[in-house]
Amino acid sequence: MTTLHINITRLLRELHHLATLTDCPPTTDATLPTPTTAVTRIVFTPRDLEARAYIKSLAESAGFTVRTDAIGNTFLRFPGSDPTLPAIGTGSHTDAIPHAGMYDGTVGVLGGLEAMRSLKESGFQPHRSIETLIFTSEEPTRFGIGCIGSRLLGGVIDPATADALPDRLPEADPQAPTGLTLHDVRTAAGFTGSLSTVPLPPNYYHAWVELHIEQGPLLEREGISLGIVTNIAAPASYRYEITGFGGHAGALLMPDRRDALCAAAELILSVERHTLAANAASGTADSVATVGTVAVHPGAVNSVPSRVTLMLDIRDTDVTRRDTIMAALHADIRAIETRRHITITEQQINADIPAVSDPHIVATLEAICQSDSVSYKKMVSRAYHDSSFIARVAPIAMLFIPCRAGVSHRPDEYSTPESIALGTRILALTLSKLANE
Amino acid sequence: MTTLHINITRLLRELHHLATLTDCPPTTDATLPTPTTAVTRIVFTPRDLEARAYIKSLAESAGFTVRTDAIGNTFLRFPGSDPTLPAIGTGSHTDAIPHAGMYDGTVGVLGGLEAMRSLKESGFQPHRSIETLIFTSEEPTRFGIGCIGSRLLGGVIDPATADALPDRLPEADPQAPTGLTLHDVRTAAGFTGSLSTVPLPPNYYHAWVELHIEQGPLLEREGISLGIVTNIAAPASYRYEITGFGGHAGALLMPDRRDALCAAAELILSVERHTLAANAASGTADSVATVGTVAVHPGAVNSVPSRVTLMLDIRDTDVTRRDTIMAALHADIRAIETRRHITITEQQINADIPAVSDPHIVATLEAICQSDSVSYKKMVSRAYHDSSFIARVAPIAMLFIPCRAGVSHRPDEYSTPESIALGTRILALTLSKLANE
Repeated sequence: MTTLHINITRLLRELHHLATLTDCPPTTDATLPTPTTAVTRIVFTPRDLEARAYIKSLAESAGFTVRTDAIGNTFLRFPGSDPTLPAIGTGSHTDAIPHAGMYDGTVGVLGGLEAMRSLKESGFQPHRSIETLIFTSEEPTRFGIGCIGSRLLGGVIDPATADALPDRLPEADPQAPTGLTLHDVRTAAGFTGSLSTVPLPPNYYHAWVELHIEQGPLLEREGISLGIVTNIAAPASYRYEITGFGGHAGALLMPDRRDALCAAAELILSVERHTLAANAASGTADSVATVGTVAVHPGAVNSVPSRVTLMLDIRDTDVTRRDTIMAALHADIRAIETRRHITITEQQINADIPAVSDPHIVATLEAICQSDSVSYKKMVSRAYHDSSFIARVAPIAMLFIPCRAGVSHRPDEYSTPESIALGTRILALTLSKLANE
Repeated sequence: MTTLHINITRLLRELHHLATLTDCPPTTDATLPTPTTAVTRIVFTPRDLEARAYIKSLAESAGFTVRTDAIGNTFLRFPGSDPTLPAIGTGSHTDAIPHAGMYDGTVGVLGGLEAMRSLKESGFQPHRSIETLIFTSEEPTRFGIGCIGSRLLGGVIDPATADALPDRLPEADPQAPTGLTLHDVRTAAGFTGSLSTVPLPPNYYHAWVELHIEQGPLLEREGISLGIVTNIAAPASYRYEITGFGGHAGALLMPDRRDALCAAAELILSVERHTLAANAASGTADSVATVGTVAVHPGAVNSVPSRVTLMLDIRDTDVTRRDTIMAALHADIRAIETRRHITITEQQINADIPAVSDPHIVATLEAICQSDSVSYKKMVSRAYHDSSFIARVAPIAMLFIPCRAGVSHRPDEYSTPESIALGTRILALTLSKLANE
């Protein structure tokens, strides 16, 4: 091929256009270094469908083929000279949690497309086909579980179970089902057919590499250009329902109270305390746990809370350590129940195992960085990604670019044009190398 | 007059019809002693307006005159033989917090109407006019402050301040303004005119008595038929905004976190701790404090909470003791801010003074109970009521009936037909006595 040229102007224009497809109005916050755009793009909403249509049109304009499966996973294909060989995959997601940023996921989708486009424009013809995927519902916002598209591709979730997932659009109570199921919502959005057709056949991919922003501060802090991911941490999430006894905030006296919110407050602080203790015991910062949603019933200033629901997200690179934190939390929950005469039920939403990158793909990424004189470090991904589930059916690795202050899932999420261009370039070179193996 | 007959069948039929005007579907919970109806009737919603129209039609059918002021307070009048004399007032409210019961407020409105009706049907002609009021927005659900109608009548809130109150319909964030003001909402609901016309002129009422369910367990526990209220506790409410730093729940490591929800959990437990300490120090259970609403931003399972807003309701019969609790809470808030690198702002929504009943009205109620051989106790109202604000411009007292287990602001709120009939009877006898003074 002729010299590879990443068209960063085009790529940034597309990223910024994608950011306008949001259910938040664009905001400018003078306290932040650059104007920011708050992105809310919940899976299967009109904004999500517009984003997919936009990227499909870009892929078709570039001469790639487009295929969509029954859950909506979208495959943009640069056909190889031998299309019967296992392909090379890249890609990420375009859905976004409420009030998020414009780089999470999108850099991997539009960066993957730009990598294929720039390779094609340089005259490169791959031996194996190269695909950029848009995964459906990486974020757990709507259905309470993340990576639904990649879980199905990887055979990690049963198609019938996925179809029955309750729709929990983030309204007053983020955990309150709407009465619809994923099956209802996907078919209404035009994604019909049986989910049993979604899992990838054996040897569909020869190799897989996902480009993503780090969502942590390490690369920026250490002044390193790229991260090559060797492990993806094991996430788990749980839903708690805390049931006490409500009443009038003036008349229900303190000795008679069974306040569900006070019990929830103890649970929230117990999560934090045991996670900090696990970090102290291991001498690491590898355990993280978060209560991110709380819904109070009845939710009136003058009413004692009778019921609280909340969601816990806990992750670790070490499943045993995660289990230790959960055991300590369970002991505290039993004590809270007894002392406060409260009932606390736990529902496990998911509990996954860590993913390990393929040594050959990691070595390929390292060799390309070295020959391009790009600084890199091998690192752990503490956020989980669709690659965690593609790892069940293909050799994977991930490539991280720095993001400012490690900020993600916020409107001021930011990566520099230089980082985006560099990540896309190393991705393109890696895809081309793997495609000719 | 001929013998007074309270038509309890009619009154119960009206109470049950009123309960069907709800934004919750009726529910039957087999674990509760009787079928229950969840009532949600937020001020100025269609359901609230239907409830007012229904009661006005009942009053007009009974031959009473109806007048509505600029905030929507509705006066059902049984004209006296000398309508120039200061009148006798009774009444309460028909709005209801989300998922509340069918007796709070409504017993005082329909009981007041039934008292006037039964007096009229017995052939009684009062010397002074008797009025039953429906107050607007006793509950703070929509505008963040309770008793707006009675505050205006009592001259406790400035009309311009009231008109500017932001509309906070209880959606995803109960504290998030809709952009509308009370003025917008009331005029859209048909209540036009200047709020400066609402305050009652001097000597409008000769005496005022409000009938209400106790909303506490004391009467039932002690087997006493009625409560005569001597004092109404001093309520205050505050809004807190807790601002930390958000980020991805997997990638933002624990040492770097400034989690607004963990700070909120500490605040919630601090409120409980200092209130229990105040009760222990005074040897009473007179201090109550409640955090009843919590809104988490951005409110996603995989996002560290960056901002939490919550509302505190605190009441006491002793203002000094309430101030002591708040001072201890403020010290804890400063410590939480420093330790967690979090900002916590406090906005006082209201802080009222206790109301004291008029000795003559209390003595009248006592004399009527004694002559009717009805057991009663003099007691403190720990819930606040519209009477707290009418007390600024008229001599007041309140009459309580027992409610099951002290439960209120819940669907299973319940008072027996016997209690409702007895409270209405004693109210009617008291109104007739005061009207002929």
